[in-house]
Amino acid sequence: MTRAAHYMGDRTFVVNGVEPVPPGPGQVRIDVAYTGICGTDLHVMHGAMDHRVHAPAVIGHEMSGRIAELGADVTGLAVGDPVTVIPLEWCGQCPACLAGHTHICHRLTFIGVDSAGSMQNSWTVAAGTVVPLPPDLPLRHGALIEPTAVAVHDVRRSRLAAGEHAVVIGAGPVGLLIGKVAQSVGASVTVLELDPHRRAVAEEIGLSTLDPAAVDVAAHVREHTGDAGADVVFEVSGSGSGVRLATDLLAVRGRLVVVAIHPVPREVDLHRVFWRELEVIGVRVYAHADFEEAVRLVHGGQVPAGRLISRVVPLDEVAAAFEALEAGGSVKVLLDCGAAA
Amino acid sequence: MTRAAHYMGDRTFVVNGVEPVPPGPGQVRIDVAYTGICGTDLHVMHGAMDHRVHAPAVIGHEMSGRIAELGADVTGLAVGDPVTVIPLEWCGQCPACLAGHTHICHRLTFIGVDSAGSMQNSWTVAAGTVVPLPPDLPLRHGALIEPTAVAVHDVRRSRLAAGEHAVVIGAGPVGLLIGKVAQSVGASVTVLELDPHRRAVAEEIGLSTLDPAAVDVAAHVREHTGDAGADVVFEVSGSGSGVRLATDLLAVRGRLVVVAIHPVPREVDLHRVFWRELEVIGVRVYAHADFEEAVRLVHGGQVPAGRLISRVVPLDEVAAAFEALEAGGSVKVLLDCGAAA
Ligand SMILES: [Zn+2]
Ligand SMILES: [Zn+2]
Ligand SMILES: [Zn+2]
Ligand SMILES: [Zn+2]
Repeated sequence: MTRAAHYMGDRTFVVNGVEPVPPGPGQVRIDVAYTGICGTDLHVMHGAMDHRVHAPAVIGHEMSGRIAELGADVTGLAVGDPVTVIPLEWCGQCPACLAGHTHICHRLTFIGVDSAGSMQNSWTVAAGTVVPLPPDLPLRHGALIEPTAVAVHDVRRSRLAAGEHAVVIGAGPVGLLIGKVAQSVGASVTVLELDPHRRAVAEEIGLSTLDPAAVDVAAHVREHTGDAGADVVFEVSGSGSGVRLATDLLAVRGRLVVVAIHPVPREVDLHRVFWRELEVIGVRVYAHADFEEAVRLVHGGQVPAGRLISRVVPLDEVAAAFEALEAGGSVKVLLDCGAAA
Repeated sequence: MTRAAHYMGDRTFVVNGVEPVPPGPGQVRIDVAYTGICGTDLHVMHGAMDHRVHAPAVIGHEMSGRIAELGADVTGLAVGDPVTVIPLEWCGQCPACLAGHTHICHRLTFIGVDSAGSMQNSWTVAAGTVVPLPPDLPLRHGALIEPTAVAVHDVRRSRLAAGEHAVVIGAGPVGLLIGKVAQSVGASVTVLELDPHRRAVAEEIGLSTLDPAAVDVAAHVREHTGDAGADVVFEVSGSGSGVRLATDLLAVRGRLVVVAIHPVPREVDLHRVFWRELEVIGVRVYAHADFEEAVRLVHGGQVPAGRLISRVVPLDEVAAAFEALEAGGSVKVLLDCGAAA
């Protein structure tokens, strides 16, 4: 028996014993070390994704662990290997897949939402979703590869280049990771954030911040860029005011990357989009190359994973972990799923 | 004395005699053959641009003519050469210019709006704005190079490729030109237009059309593209409903090109932008390479300039020409400015 946290609906989790799932052909069973809780998981707990998550359900998709068992026909992996997982499965046959954009397959399965996730001791997945981790990478850090891959994907799609100036609107976990990934390509970065605690965290990891309620951000960015404006703005706040500010800040040929999920249509200043030949770029999840770059950046320390982990909570206390994250003041909260011990 | 049409404010033009402007160093004087009337000129007549156009003013920027006189220090041009003009002048010193985007200079002068235009017999401009025309190109067709360059620029920015499917929302002159330029790169094209006369014109020049009031356009596009959606949508209607339809039509990684000028912010479905990793791309005027390609396409017949010219009106009847254009039913109305005779 291993233990698994089940989302039961109505903001409730129950942790109980389950039989480990033996890996079938092409599958592996992973002893899970850590699982991070992300905004999507909070949405699930709130019931906002009950149309996709049918209780009882094990969720979780930001994880690290070690290979525990190999199914038939699995090559290139060995028991004991430290790994993380790309939580995507695609159909291979829709127009998006046929065009090579499998990560935005028309029938994408997001593992940990649409199928069982990693908030358990033992997790069985397709071997093709496994990404090996360097042996000397702390497994706690490995749980941050997935959100780092989000940031890598966003920066890649923005075509941000060395010497350019990027603005990140919102200093939650994804905003902080985007800021560090943007620095890793040689850009200068300004992070906008209303919350003083989040600004302090950003400053601690070497990101310049501004309080948009206290400072004329547009004037600041113009001054910082010799009147040009920002080359890229990452909108990570999910607010209409963030979208408005973003177009105001951008230089000629600047790119607005829509990272946050906007549940309703937003007013966009298309006149400014025309006048300055701006681009608005949608971004969603990641591709395999983004995971590889994320491993490189976390391993090399350009993304300071350890400093983004606010606390580690035992799997049995999953409810307390969600509460702590909701209370604010944390960046990443990890569940200790046992295999690191 | 030559004749010039002066915008006098209050929807009024007066045509009278003026002294030709002798070309200074680096300038040329052009005997104007034809000047097309475009949407911008209609806006000027309506007084909507009185903040930029100070009556009495000679407007007009879609033209053809012949070099009549060379100023000092002009090389590479000869009296009698058929030419058109790129109606842009930039500062060379702002961040946009320094980044190489001179066509969207922070202090761009649009000739024919911000300075004297070509609705006159004789026009004096900087030699650097002149683009030679092939000797065998009818000068009437030469007056369509400028709007064709707009279309070339828009298609270039869209990265539309052979085998892709493009939708053009709006079959005014720019929409028709975009449709033909899109075909010239090997794309299949569907033009959406409410007005039956405009649809008929589009069909006459070989563009497939749909009436969006009569047909489920999204279903049609899905069927035409094997459920993928359109690779590129050109929004040329300037309407909020056009913007809404555009994001609905686009395939994964599709591009929405904002061609029309939207005077107010528009609601954009940023959730769909995220979900399908769409791009929204701003486009404004053109660069020199776009003019060269426009000359090639008009000269080669891929853009059927002659079939887009609805009527040619003598310069002295400029008021009637504007009225005819406003009345609808015309694509391009040209003013005969004398030099072709
Ligand atoms: Zn996540
Ligand atoms: Zn697919
Ligand atoms: Zn024009
Ligand atoms: Zn400039």
